[in-house]
Amino acid sequence: MTSRRLYELVLENGVSASPFVWRIRYALAHKGLTFESVPLAFTEIPQAFAGRYKTVPVLAEGDQTIVDSWDIVDYLERTYPDRPPLFSGPSEYAMVRLFDSCFAIDVLRQFFSLYALDIHNAARPCDRSYFRTSREQRFLKGKSLEAFVDGRETRLPTVREALTPLRLQLSRNPFLGGPQPNYADYIIFGLFQWVASMNTLPLLAADDLPLRSWHDREIGRASCRERV
Amino acid sequence: MTSRRLYELVLENGVSASPFVWRIRYALAHKGLTFESVPLAFTEIPQAFAGRYKTVPVLAEGDQTIVDSWDIVDYLERTYPDRPPLFSGPSEYAMVRLFDSCFAIDVLRQFFSLYALDIHNAARPCDRSYFRTSREQRFLKGKSLEAFVDGRETRLPTVREALTPLRLQLSRNPFLGGPQPNYADYIIFGLFQWVASMNTLPLLAADDLPLRSWHDREIGRASCRERV
Repeated sequence: MTSRRLYELVLENGVSASPFVWRIRYALAHKGLTFESVPLAFTEIPQAFAGRYKTVPVLAEGDQTIVDSWDIVDYLERTYPDRPPLFSGPSEYAMVRLFDSCFAIDVLRQFFSLYALDIHNAARPCDRSYFRTSREQRFLKGKSLEAFVDGRETRLPTVREALTPLRLQLSRNPFLGGPQPNYADYIIFGLFQWVASMNTLPLLAADDLPLRSWHDREIGRASCRERV
Repeated sequence: MTSRRLYELVLENGVSASPFVWRIRYALAHKGLTFESVPLAFTEIPQAFAGRYKTVPVLAEGDQTIVDSWDIVDYLERTYPDRPPLFSGPSEYAMVRLFDSCFAIDVLRQFFSLYALDIHNAARPCDRSYFRTSREQRFLKGKSLEAFVDGRETRLPTVREALTPLRLQLSRNPFLGGPQPNYADYIIFGLFQWVASMNTLPLLAADDLPLRSWHDREIGRASCRERV
């Protein structure tokens, strides 16, 4: 049996906390592929790969090491053609990538604007200073995490409103991908799992039934195959 | 042979000028279905259907009358299974609808913010007063079309930037839909054809090669089968 390792980012509570890792957890579950989890702190990632890779997910399998979630997806589809495919064909694949770049990345940014400080506070103690410094310099133009999330309750309705296309889609289909979940479901659910790993402000309103019901149907899908 | 009529909106120059009609022109061309065009002014639409329908496209075929571009697409797929399908299956269909609601509709709004007055000026003279009054009241909260588009040159870079996910997609594939054009291509190309019917401000920068090259490949696809 091939040794398969998924390097992931974890918080102090031990929960996997990268939306891009979560996508891959779902992809592996979809294909029925088990794996050994290698949990890393933010600051352990460069060391784990002698500085070659700075982000997770990283998938290591035999003598292959694959970085970047889309490259991992491509690798899994290519390597396991006998397993359930993630995409019915090149058109669906193209559409999911387009959805990722035209919607999911924007949603990720909006979630970060609510939860940047929650991530800091939930990170392993050894990571907090690094997380604060790198994010404040790289994304926040020197603004503090506290100032960045200040007033987030008043911005929450706008972020919830941005999820309207998902609700509309779920009013027509049980899953974002139609009658069955597809990788678009895994992308958005990965974002929700990321939020769930650390949020101190509820993302979804209590009466957001379209998204809550979809969430409840999705939640068990990847968790049974991991060991974090 | 079935008589097939496509009711469309036309401007003073005789050009079809609804992004939703253009989608259907592309869908019909994709399936190799010819049609007779019924050109209407904005103000002629309600009369043409005894008040039953207020928007185009409307497709009339035998004793069937179908309104709404997605309903027409569904009808065409259901009625002509022997013709080239618009979708490879339910997952691709679901993804294109998701793309439509999470991206294309927003792009449409952004284009309208640049070209609302151009549409007015290009409309048939009998339509201009109706177009102005209805749009100013319904969408602009009483603001004039002139005030709405004022400063559009300074907003143009932001609108062009909003098309970045399309350029990214076209850096990986010849078409938005992957190796072959799909209905996502037709949706966006419909928006471009709408702009091209009336714009007095160039939408794409001269050096926007990804979108210009895609546009040049797409442009012939629907025009040969119409009679406007």
